[in-house]
Amino acid sequence: SHRETLSKVWSTKCENVKSFEVKNSLMPSTWVVVRIDGRHFHRFSEAHEFEKPNDEKALNLMNSCAAAVLEEFPDVVFSYGVSDEYSFVFKDGSQFCERYSSQIVSRVVSFFSSMYVMKWKEFFLQKELKYAPSFDGRAICYPSAEILQDYLAWRQVDCHINNQYNTCFWMLVKSGKAKSEAQHILKGTQTQEKEDLLLQQFGIVYNTLPVMFRKGSCVFSDKVEESMEENGGHPVEGYLEKVIVEHCDIIGSSFWDLHPSILSCNLSKHPSIF
Amino acid sequence: SHRETLSKVWSTKCENVKSFEVKNSLMPSTWVVVRIDGRHFHRFSEAHEFEKPNDEKALNLMNSCAAAVLEEFPDVVFSYGVSDEYSFVFKDGSQFCERYSSQIVSRVVSFFSSMYVMKWKEFFLQKELKYAPSFDGRAICYPSAEILQDYLAWRQVDCHINNQYNTCFWMLVKSGKAKSEAQHILKGTQTQEKEDLLLQQFGIVYNTLPVMFRKGSCVFSDKVEESMEENGGHPVEGYLEKVIVEHCDIIGSSFWDLHPSILSCNLSKHPSIF
Amino acid sequence: SHRETLSKVWSTKCENVKSFEVKNSLMPSTWVVVRIDGRHFHRFSEAHEFEKPNDEKALNLMNSCAAAVLEEFPDVVFSYGVSDEYSFVFKDGSQFCERYSSQIVSRVVSFFSSMYVMKWKEFFLQKELKYAPSFDGRAICYPSAEILQDYLAWRQVDCHINNQYNTCFWMLVKSGKAKSEAQHILKGTQTQEKEDLLLQQFGIVYNTLPVMFRKGSCVFSDKVEESMEENGGHPVEGYLEKVIVEHCDIIGSSFWDLHPSILSCNLSKHPSIF
Amino acid sequence: SHRETLSKVWSTKCENVKSFEVKNSLMPSTWVVVRIDGRHFHRFSEAHEFEKPNDEKALNLMNSCAAAVLEEFPDVVFSYGVSDEYSFVFKDGSQFCERYSSQIVSRVVSFFSSMYVMKWKEFFLQKELKYAPSFDGRAICYPSAEILQDYLAWRQVDCHINNQYNTCFWMLVKSGKAKSEAQHILKGTQTQEKEDLLLQQFGIVYNTLPVMFRKGSCVFSDKVEESMEENGGHPVEGYLEKVIVEHCDIIGSSFWDLHPSILSCNLSKHPSIF
Repeated sequence: SHRETLSKVWSTKCENVKSFEVKNSLMPSTWVVVRIDGRHFHRFSEAHEFEKPNDEKALNLMNSCAAAVLEEFPDVVFSYGVSDEYSFVFKDGSQFCERYSSQIVSRVVSFFSSMYVMKWKEFFLQKELKYAPSFDGRAICYPSAEILQDYLAWRQVDCHINNQYNTCFWMLVKSGKAKSEAQHILKGTQTQEKEDLLLQQFGIVYNTLPVMFRKGSCVFSDKVEESMEENGGHPVEGYLEKVIVEHCDIIGSSFWDLHPSILSCNLSKHPSIF
Repeated sequence: SHRETLSKVWSTKCENVKSFEVKNSLMPSTWVVVRIDGRHFHRFSEAHEFEKPNDEKALNLMNSCAAAVLEEFPDVVFSYGVSDEYSFVFKDGSQFCERYSSQIVSRVVSFFSSMYVMKWKEFFLQKELKYAPSFDGRAICYPSAEILQDYLAWRQVDCHINNQYNTCFWMLVKSGKAKSEAQHILKGTQTQEKEDLLLQQFGIVYNTLPVMFRKGSCVFSDKVEESMEENGGHPVEGYLEKVIVEHCDIIGSSFWDLHPSILSCNLSKHPSIF
Repeated sequence: SHRETLSKVWSTKCENVKSFEVKNSLMPSTWVVVRIDGRHFHRFSEAHEFEKPNDEKALNLMNSCAAAVLEEFPDVVFSYGVSDEYSFVFKDGSQFCERYSSQIVSRVVSFFSSMYVMKWKEFFLQKELKYAPSFDGRAICYPSAEILQDYLAWRQVDCHINNQYNTCFWMLVKSGKAKSEAQHILKGTQTQEKEDLLLQQFGIVYNTLPVMFRKGSCVFSDKVEESMEENGGHPVEGYLEKVIVEHCDIIGSSFWDLHPSILSCNLSKHPSIF
Repeated sequence: SHRETLSKVWSTKCENVKSFEVKNSLMPSTWVVVRIDGRHFHRFSEAHEFEKPNDEKALNLMNSCAAAVLEEFPDVVFSYGVSDEYSFVFKDGSQFCERYSSQIVSRVVSFFSSMYVMKWKEFFLQKELKYAPSFDGRAICYPSAEILQDYLAWRQVDCHINNQYNTCFWMLVKSGKAKSEAQHILKGTQTQEKEDLLLQQFGIVYNTLPVMFRKGSCVFSDKVEESMEENGGHPVEGYLEKVIVEHCDIIGSSFWDLHPSILSCNLSKHPSIF
């Protein structure tokens, strides 16, 4: 446009150099998940003395950043987080970044990372952020809402299994066992055995532990009842679209039945009349 | 490992879900450039009242984050930045993240982004960071050091052309011209004409403007002479490997001749004896 | 296995060299179309004096090769051909070649090509095959049966438009018009105008032309009624699964309703009980 | 062009359907190898009673098809074949098929396959081709001529190891050993032991066996001295560019030193003056 014209040799060289850029585009009409993971967060959580097995403030910080992602990128219709990991679901018809994989991933992970640093103080008033946290990111496509639901169920199953293990492990360690000893005790145990161990040795009923620890966090837009002031000052009941955080089961179908709009097809995508 | 065993149906589902993850791996033995670009930085620079056409503090903040990238990721052997863009060069033999594209890109862009927020205060004591900045990222492979040098030359040519244009544009605007008028005046002008305009209308000799604005910034590791204290307290001259920032020509060969180690082949890669 | 051990240097080199092979795997649970196109078939059809606008023998040869593909590769559930092009549909659950794109494409195109040469004599008793024909190939994934149907409809619409144009074009040329003149006459004409031209100038009712020319060819497996001899010699009515060639509309839903098994989901893919 | 305009809904659908096509383009300025492998050639060689361990006619047929590939695709500068496998090297600057991977692979494999069928009779006068042979194909990029040479060396090393093993194996089997017994005898043996076995048990000096069996086949263009008839009928010595087949060592550097043009860089690729 306003660029001056380069010499022939220069512009040939530039064209040549640009031809190496590869634009990897994600398959159209598929559900795209961008999953980010804290990099070296084991070390990060120790350096910042996170509570074990779960640090409520650290999880709330993650959730708050995820909510900001949903507000920044309207094509994200749902997200699920556990520990230092978050999965963001872009609707199947999304044309965000023309579906170029590295742009989608880098924008989400970059925005999440700077948001994490900016919001740190909100959640850790007393703690200094000692060094720059960073996150890995990747994009995965799913061809149908059913397989996407399986993906999300997989993450929640992982949350359950890890949290139950970690809860037992840290109770054992806090009660004086060596870490290796705790590992040895838990090796090969199944769900019921872990629940028994918590109950018998520590008087803990697993299902009464905070639901955020047991189920992870769902972040999505929903109509929320809100009372607003009318002109004259009379309160009026109304509905507002708002990004909310919930901790609930997403393995069964009831959550999806309650929120049908989240995974509803973009009907305009496939016109029915030829 | 310590995971409990899932039911058959569950584990089949999980395997199925995992099979959708694609690991895009960059060609071995090629030079990898990760280039990041500020997203919507036009708006960002206005919101934070950056000086036009160049904000020295904003550029120094970029350079400082780039230096941190070189310290965090030892496989980055060189980087070049201009405006809100930075190119990081991974040496051809690098096995960083097993060369998985989205991991490499997301780690660099994520680290750079949180570093940018963390270091903001260092450079802008008086200015509040108003919202989370974010960056696009992409990876590009170059099969030889020569083409990589062409790539870097291309970025520096771009720096030159944009800076000369922007310098003229903002001088015209600051002198009272409307933006559209300034654009009209500059349309189609070549290098010499812009230099003449700056000299004749504003008394500016382009080549005396700060070299960082005209040439961009190179960040790389170099042996730096340093006097260190010996045991006995006598100062000793020595060399220390340090990440430095320079503003110099990288289009010609002299820079590369002076720093042969940057692009030297990883000789161990191709054993000479069969 | 039975391989002798290489020296350390050798085996390092071999590992290095092998690391450059990229296995591009097609997204799981998607419908895969392998489409092949005759390369330079304009020249090929002239060299072998194919009848214009359609050579029945050449089309039957294509169809016969397509039927052989369905018999050779059981995961191909449907195929559609027109002119020198054929689309082969692999069912969404197919694990053929572990879904590696270049293997799938090369096997289909290689098999089709040698089959074309082998079967040439069957269809062109009098004509010598003058040189080796070859075909381009590519693989395309579709995330749902609906979009796959749209793809096939697109090919049949193309068949219709091209055949109508070519029928008019060759009638005009055969009646003495120059090729450029014929092109000029047909420029911008729509379906109805072409039908009128054929009727008025040549007395041809387009819809009475051979259905293979107008609709292309569908090749798929179907249960075919067949009378078989029983032990005792009494003829028995029975059904046999057979690869058949049909020329019918696949744009509307009636074909798919009649043959529900072709695009039925592989239900075992997503177990319903978690 | 001469296409009639589709309705809005149709053309939207067609655009949608076409958007699923992915054009995988090979990295510019890299050496591209297309390697093809006979599919199920173990069975094929039994069905056609190929001689064991090497069938000279079958190898010559492969070589003849490879030579045809070099004549058909001028960007192929070298090829190397062994057994039912052939590697075709496209020069680094090649723009064949705009470097689209599946087109390059499918064209080579398709042309080779139909050529194989066409030329069968030339080499097997007495034998009927019983069914359609087919080949797998893949494309691999190498960023430098050195690594490409390593690749070719790897294939020749493989040829050597396999041929020595197969020679021993079939001599043992022909002398009355069971196949499993032969395998057992050869297990873990190195080059020298196999040479000793051949000499001592069968009086065979391995290095005197046909060089095509031991070294495989190189197919490339070379200037060949030829005597041509002048106008007046006097014979004149001249040089002709011809595709030739040679059986020689390509692991050491002497072959490449003798034929420097094969792997010479396309110098025009990187203009030296900026």
